[in-house]
Amino acid sequence: MKKPGAPDPDFESRIRSSFARQGLMKTLGAHLVKVAPGQAEIELPYSKAITQQHGFVHAGIVSTIADNACGFAAYSLMPAESDILGVENKINFLAPAKGERFVGIGRVIKVGRTLAVCSAEVWAYSSGEKTLVAVMQSTLMTVPKQA
Amino acid sequence: MKKPGAPDPDFESRIRSSFARQGLMKTLGAHLVKVAPGQAEIELPYSKAITQQHGFVHAGIVSTIADNACGFAAYSLMPAESDILGVENKINFLAPAKGERFVGIGRVIKVGRTLAVCSAEVWAYSSGEKTLVAVMQSTLMTVPKQA
Amino acid sequence: MKKPGAPDPDFESRIRSSFARQGLMKTLGAHLVKVAPGQAEIELPYSKAITQQHGFVHAGIVSTIADNACGFAAYSLMPAESDILGVENKINFLAPAKGERFVGIGRVIKVGRTLAVCSAEVWAYSSGEKTLVAVMQSTLMTVPKQA
Amino acid sequence: MKKPGAPDPDFESRIRSSFARQGLMKTLGAHLVKVAPGQAEIELPYSKAITQQHGFVHAGIVSTIADNACGFAAYSLMPAESDILGVENKINFLAPAKGERFVGIGRVIKVGRTLAVCSAEVWAYSSGEKTLVAVMQSTLMTVPKQA
Repeated sequence: MKKPGAPDPDFESRIRSSFARQGLMKTLGAHLVKVAPGQAEIELPYSKAITQQHGFVHAGIVSTIADNACGFAAYSLMPAESDILGVENKINFLAPAKGERFVGIGRVIKVGRTLAVCSAEVWAYSSGEKTLVAVMQSTLMTVPKQA
Repeated sequence: MKKPGAPDPDFESRIRSSFARQGLMKTLGAHLVKVAPGQAEIELPYSKAITQQHGFVHAGIVSTIADNACGFAAYSLMPAESDILGVENKINFLAPAKGERFVGIGRVIKVGRTLAVCSAEVWAYSSGEKTLVAVMQSTLMTVPKQA
Repeated sequence: MKKPGAPDPDFESRIRSSFARQGLMKTLGAHLVKVAPGQAEIELPYSKAITQQHGFVHAGIVSTIADNACGFAAYSLMPAESDILGVENKINFLAPAKGERFVGIGRVIKVGRTLAVCSAEVWAYSSGEKTLVAVMQSTLMTVPKQA
Repeated sequence: MKKPGAPDPDFESRIRSSFARQGLMKTLGAHLVKVAPGQAEIELPYSKAITQQHGFVHAGIVSTIADNACGFAAYSLMPAESDILGVENKINFLAPAKGERFVGIGRVIKVGRTLAVCSAEVWAYSSGEKTLVAVMQSTLMTVPKQA
């Protein structure tokens, strides 16, 4: 498949600035640990504030991390004067999100003029072991930058 | 389609207690506004703490509300001594999640012995108008109650 | 939700002509039984030529009927000089596709300038009873007409 | 992730016999070109009998090949006395299915006692070049063998 370079040489600062404007990432204490052309990784620490009924991380937050990693992976390959919208995503939950920290890794599968298709994995790290807790497949859309 | 009643007469208190144990719902200030056999509604107020880069509610939180509404809709039709697991979900985002409050409505489409298939809508309320912001289709699984 | 009329008054003949050019629909013996703005219904007779290992209709053909009903539902709301592409779809299988005939009903949930989001149901008819065998949620894209 | 061996030493003949009973695969002229524990590949030749309106292979048939490759990949890891049911699938279409032949490759991501999660790719081969035309993520379920 196409493995294009990033058309915007400043893609990383553009993405880090967008990430920093997401109130939710601050609330979650999430960090953008890596950005590369067509790839992004987000790390999330465990906290009771984001749990479901059994004390594990809520599926919705697992989904959030996966979705956001896909979004920034796609955004890395878009022009400087663009915005990105989530069109849809699909996630399978493979194991309970048990652990001290979680990493969502998003990758672009294919990018076109309007749409990008991405996949993501979310890994749980617990006492030095890692477990794949979810896989996502998603569609993103480029739109001209909103004022 | 099967429109079964709830096999557990105490389904509502079981569901409200499960909802109350979700740390995330507390963090979001979300409320379970309605539970009925095969249906659940969750309301979420807007706050800066859950935004994406343009100040709207983050897609991941829209997804969380939809997913949770599906989960409790399915859980209403399950036996007293059961737990519920999310298998997978798929969400289409139809409009930016702009508004003062948001309501996720989950409904069971079909429930079997092991799996339930649900759909959800998420509506944004803004200055007295409502807009459909997302639709979800999801699969849940019953498991025997964890100790 | 937007319930727009069809911008192309000749949408039905445009859709019927597109359906007639699909070699697969001929092979399946499928018929376009209804087209209306934002809606399409396709009927499929049972035959051994389209079965899976237990003699029921193959999931892939159930998916085909659902996907095609969504595509034509969306295409009914598009301009005369347009083509339609499937972006993605997601289908849940609810019951074995057992019956003499099957009807896929596609409906537009939301149509925008570029993308349309649709849902579909596939019903099996067997000895006068009908059963919902699958539900789909899908995304379609308009593109300018190919020469 | 778990990369289990096949619990049934005769998995390949069990799978080939199941494939041979699918009337649809015969109609399509499709072949099961490879089976290994957790993996299956299906090859499909082009024919006018399976086209959409522009003469390419219909999205529903692309989906069929992907879904079937996932199903047999999962079935390879199941016990001898089991059947397999498709729960749901999600497919993104990346390019028109143009070519002389098509290969669907299904792989198990995770297998549990009841459910298996798989992914598939569908490649088009045209004049010696190959193009990724679709990616799928799907859920399958084991059930005790039907009589």
